Amino acid sequence: MTPESTRAAVLHGPGDLRIEEVPLRPLGPDDVLVAVDAVGVCGSDMHYFASGRNGQNVLRQPTVLGHEASGVVTAVGADVPLPIGARVAIEPAVGCGRCPTCRSGRYNLCPTGTCFGSPPTHGTFAERVVAPSRAVHPLPAGIGTELGSLIEPLAVAVWAVQRADVRVGHRVLVTGAGPIGILVAQVARAAGAAEVVVTDVNDDRLARAAELGATATINTATTELTCTGMDRLLECSAHPAALWQGIRALGPATRATVVGQAAPAVDGLPLAFLQRWEIDLATAFRYAHAFPAAIALAATGRVDLAGILTGRFPLDQAADALRAPGRDPRHLKVVVRPTA
Amino acid sequence: MTPESTRAAVLHGPGDLRIEEVPLRPLGPDDVLVAVDAVGVCGSDMHYFASGRNGQNVLRQPTVLGHEASGVVTAVGADVPLPIGARVAIEPAVGCGRCPTCRSGRYNLCPTGTCFGSPPTHGTFAERVVAPSRAVHPLPAGIGTELGSLIEPLAVAVWAVQRADVRVGHRVLVTGAGPIGILVAQVARAAGAAEVVVTDVNDDRLARAAELGATATINTATTELTCTGMDRLLECSAHPAALWQGIRALGPATRATVVGQAAPAVDGLPLAFLQRWEIDLATAFRYAHAFPAAIALAATGRVDLAGILTGRFPLDQAADALRAPGRDPRHLKVVVRPTA
Amino acid sequence: MTPESTRAAVLHGPGDLRIEEVPLRPLGPDDVLVAVDAVGVCGSDMHYFASGRNGQNVLRQPTVLGHEASGVVTAVGADVPLPIGARVAIEPAVGCGRCPTCRSGRYNLCPTGTCFGSPPTHGTFAERVVAPSRAVHPLPAGIGTELGSLIEPLAVAVWAVQRADVRVGHRVLVTGAGPIGILVAQVARAAGAAEVVVTDVNDDRLARAAELGATATINTATTELTCTGMDRLLECSAHPAALWQGIRALGPATRATVVGQAAPAVDGLPLAFLQRWEIDLATAFRYAHAFPAAIALAATGRVDLAGILTGRFPLDQAADALRAPGRDPRHLKVVVRPTA
Amino acid sequence: MTPESTRAAVLHGPGDLRIEEVPLRPLGPDDVLVAVDAVGVCGSDMHYFASGRNGQNVLRQPTVLGHEASGVVTAVGADVPLPIGARVAIEPAVGCGRCPTCRSGRYNLCPTGTCFGSPPTHGTFAERVVAPSRAVHPLPAGIGTELGSLIEPLAVAVWAVQRADVRVGHRVLVTGAGPIGILVAQVARAAGAAEVVVTDVNDDRLARAAELGATATINTATTELTCTGMDRLLECSAHPAALWQGIRALGPATRATVVGQAAPAVDGLPLAFLQRWEIDLATAFRYAHAFPAAIALAATGRVDLAGILTGRFPLDQAADALRAPGRDPRHLKVVVRPTA
Repeated sequence: MTPESTRAAVLHGPGDLRIEEVPLRPLGPDDVLVAVDAVGVCGSDMHYFASGRNGQNVLRQPTVLGHEASGVVTAVGADVPLPIGARVAIEPAVGCGRCPTCRSGRYNLCPTGTCFGSPPTHGTFAERVVAPSRAVHPLPAGIGTELGSLIEPLAVAVWAVQRADVRVGHRVLVTGAGPIGILVAQVARAAGAAEVVVTDVNDDRLARAAELGATATINTATTELTCTGMDRLLECSAHPAALWQGIRALGPATRATVVGQAAPAVDGLPLAFLQRWEIDLATAFRYAHAFPAAIALAATGRVDLAGILTGRFPLDQAADALRAPGRDPRHLKVVVRPTA
Repeated sequence: MTPESTRAAVLHGPGDLRIEEVPLRPLGPDDVLVAVDAVGVCGSDMHYFASGRNGQNVLRQPTVLGHEASGVVTAVGADVPLPIGARVAIEPAVGCGRCPTCRSGRYNLCPTGTCFGSPPTHGTFAERVVAPSRAVHPLPAGIGTELGSLIEPLAVAVWAVQRADVRVGHRVLVTGAGPIGILVAQVARAAGAAEVVVTDVNDDRLARAAELGATATINTATTELTCTGMDRLLECSAHPAALWQGIRALGPATRATVVGQAAPAVDGLPLAFLQRWEIDLATAFRYAHAFPAAIALAATGRVDLAGILTGRFPLDQAADALRAPGRDPRHLKVVVRPTA
Repeated sequence: MTPESTRAAVLHGPGDLRIEEVPLRPLGPDDVLVAVDAVGVCGSDMHYFASGRNGQNVLRQPTVLGHEASGVVTAVGADVPLPIGARVAIEPAVGCGRCPTCRSGRYNLCPTGTCFGSPPTHGTFAERVVAPSRAVHPLPAGIGTELGSLIEPLAVAVWAVQRADVRVGHRVLVTGAGPIGILVAQVARAAGAAEVVVTDVNDDRLARAAELGATATINTATTELTCTGMDRLLECSAHPAALWQGIRALGPATRATVVGQAAPAVDGLPLAFLQRWEIDLATAFRYAHAFPAAIALAATGRVDLAGILTGRFPLDQAADALRAPGRDPRHLKVVVRPTA
Repeated sequence: MTPESTRAAVLHGPGDLRIEEVPLRPLGPDDVLVAVDAVGVCGSDMHYFASGRNGQNVLRQPTVLGHEASGVVTAVGADVPLPIGARVAIEPAVGCGRCPTCRSGRYNLCPTGTCFGSPPTHGTFAERVVAPSRAVHPLPAGIGTELGSLIEPLAVAVWAVQRADVRVGHRVLVTGAGPIGILVAQVARAAGAAEVVVTDVNDDRLARAAELGATATINTATTELTCTGMDRLLECSAHPAALWQGIRALGPATRATVVGQAAPAVDGLPLAFLQRWEIDLATAFRYAHAFPAAIALAATGRVDLAGILTGRFPLDQAADALRAPGRDPRHLKVVVRPTA
């Protein structure tokens, strides 16, 4: 018998996070029960915690947050070949699997899919979670369970670089040196980029980016962005100004990809510039089929996950974890450790 | 000996078009002399004529307008194998041919290239023009010289459909039923689109679109655009509102392509919507390698060029030609006939 | 209650086809019961009937053949929104839906998937079949149920043209004027091909190809294939010699796609020629996501299905249907009508 | 005044290499005169030297071999902005620049283009060569002139990896651990491949491959190739058996790319296997637009060129250089140093 409930950090409203017992759904034949070892804190978790909403999605009922999780398999459904004890990263959004969008391979865009920790779906700030088998990805020996929780943001970066179509020899501009920007810079480098220029307004973050793979960094608060003829832009700051500046740095027949969370309506699109140079504007939403590549990059040391991990908190202190990056911008990624 | 000058319609300032003798450059070994038979009037010509500018480009010295031209070869340079008497369409912008952008195949984006009729480069509202041999494309028996002048806007549509990546079975939305919108609708249909929905605010234009290949038309001045799940949008109206509306009609993992002339800065970009569904925003600028396909589509009757030709003017009345579409919105495409 | 068995044409061995009662699996919540109206005879059916095998697949137990089917929905499982009475085409191979290949969108390549009529999986030469809901595609008013059975071979052609990457203005060579070759020629034309040259060794078939969309036909038994610089080859004859000849007709940076059933080992690959011109050799296996486009092309008259239908047989005469094309090469496609 | 001739190693027939004075063409306005510092020996040079032919190309008149060259600019034509003294790698085949193939960006496939060292065009085993400006690529500080000669084979590898469409996280199989195979393995790794398995029949070469980036090596003379589900194959051994074996190791919807020199007709193509899994068979011929990426990879240490350089010879001993790899299979790449 699998447990009927789990201890979890439940958000009841802005700033109101409570450690409570939450029901677990029964383990189906295609499900896996995971003892959660580590859960990364994402900007979206911080938005829900601070304001009760993230973009267009609003907290309307108490919900467990968290979607960047790793752990250990403690029970499996009848149809699941995974062994008990397998260490896994959890892919939090895998689509319904039946609609035309899922069947075409783009399950990240499933119109009806749910995602761990997107209200009202409970997330992974919990001791245990039940997940469909296709959502768990075994971790090889080279990746500890704690860092395994960062496979999710790394998968964001892998998908972003794929959507951006970064090729060997490209000169790549990454705007924003937060955790996603730094991971994107690392993956772009791993994909063969000749140059990876990272911009931000915080020198500490830029220093970290430089340590972790940027070939050049620019503080756009103090220095004008003057590079031109770049092949790719990956916008990871969620600031439209960075997007527009970055686009101006691109050459003919290139591509800008928005990775940071986009606002509903943005002013100032330089459409004539995009058209004169046929620069495509693409976007990335979560990831599809990206966990295996993310795991491979981390396991072979092509991407340094430890370098962005800056804090650890037990489940009881999940609220502190959710406040930490806002209080100290030197934080890149903090994790909650429910069972560690 | 080739002539040293030609009669041409020269724009000296807004509304100031004069029929004058203009020098012709000497015929080089790779050049062709063309007796111009027909020249289509484009919106950009009308902008220059009305205001002395088009987008960021400003008339600063007297310039012959016109870039949609066909004619008959009357002399060729030493290295050109074309026969005298060949009927040709002229591709007005072919790039420098030497820069990395040209060498990579995207000569339409050449940073230093010139275009017939883009000030200060003289255009084709003239009895004769000299063009490099790679700019002239022989017309087969199936296309008369007059309609040959419309190969240029058809090439715009061909390239737009290629940039839009229209595929067999796609449901395509075209916003704007001007000459380019109607040609784009026809080419999308020729490319296998299952549905081609055309929108405009003018019922006459929509009626013409319906005759020429649209499977449905919608007057967005009076009817809300309610279609959803479209595969491709081709924006041909140059109105941002049409672009934003059209984007809302697209499904997941699709593509919007801006064909109409873009403004420098546009407000209201629905970036969160684009991101949630990973809709790419692309643009089309002129064309590259599109004349042969355009000629093939017209020669085999897949595209009806005669259906958009609504007026003819001799060179002496070029100013009337430039005013005609503005005076009567039922005009789609008018041509000037310098030597006919 | 849905019926527990159906009358069907069961192949017991080479030439040994028996009309028998065959069990039907119970209708699951995601299943549909279809009264089969028409079933096309495919070359693979003829191979099984003649020799008990098709390629590497061998008949080892009595099996109902047939996979090109249309019919009328007579019962649906609890989760299926289709109305009783819906006319549908059946997609006979839809993959397991769970493996990485299926999840990536290429369900036609599923390693464990089954296909109606591929032994030992029973097929559609039957009065009734049970199919998963994702395998049935509603037919619009423009397609009768009989022709609906030809949506399956048309989907083969649609997928082939997509794999071949046929673009507007392309010059396309199709080798083989059997039913698939003629459908491929039609779809290539519908996808914007400027020229569609069809080759075969049978003048009757070539005449049919010319009626149905080929712009030129060549009998390669009597005439050398001299065309050059073609953009795409679609090989539909299953003869290596046709493939090698066709490749020689291609220009630089082009693509040959093998649609006809391939032999395990083929001699004479012109690899140096492929390399000198960087011609890609691709293949097409069944189809993925192609039924909607096939239905759209047929419903809008872009493809003429009636033109390839040359014979009809009741279920009792299924063996005659399986012999007909071999007896008279003027046959293109014959159908069995189990309930008509 | 630029020199009218140069000392060079001229091949007069099989094994008959003579150091002679050879005329230089006059420096045109778009040309560059290069003092050749180093020239790599390629398998094609060795074929010409041994037998007077390479593939279909036959030595019919005395010709200077050599096409992997670097050097120092000693004179420039009037239109060339390069400074005297610039250290450059020479791209030996740049196309005519005017035909449709060149204009589309695939100048490597130009039907009329010439290549340094492909008879009857003189090559770079010479003290001086004249090259068009678009053929010379400046070397940054990070690459010495000697290793600059290996930019050419590295460009072969870069283009091969681009043609192969290697993506982040891919599992890549490289058959053949000669200089090209080892460079391809390195570039595949630099492009984000998670695994790079290299096969050969020579343990020394495999050991070198393992040092330079292969994640696994297999001696197929002694060990069966059992890997499956690979994402990409790059065939660099020029042995059909390796190609067929490698194809069997690929998974669904993947791609095999032939990099090694292909034979005119090859038997045993596993076409049914390719079709069942929709594996594309591609080829790579020289390179287009690949020198800048090759230079960037070498300059930033992503690819180790020094590790494949195993011998140096003065121009007078060019014949020894052409024999060296054949005499000792531990040689990977030897260079001739005309002016060093």
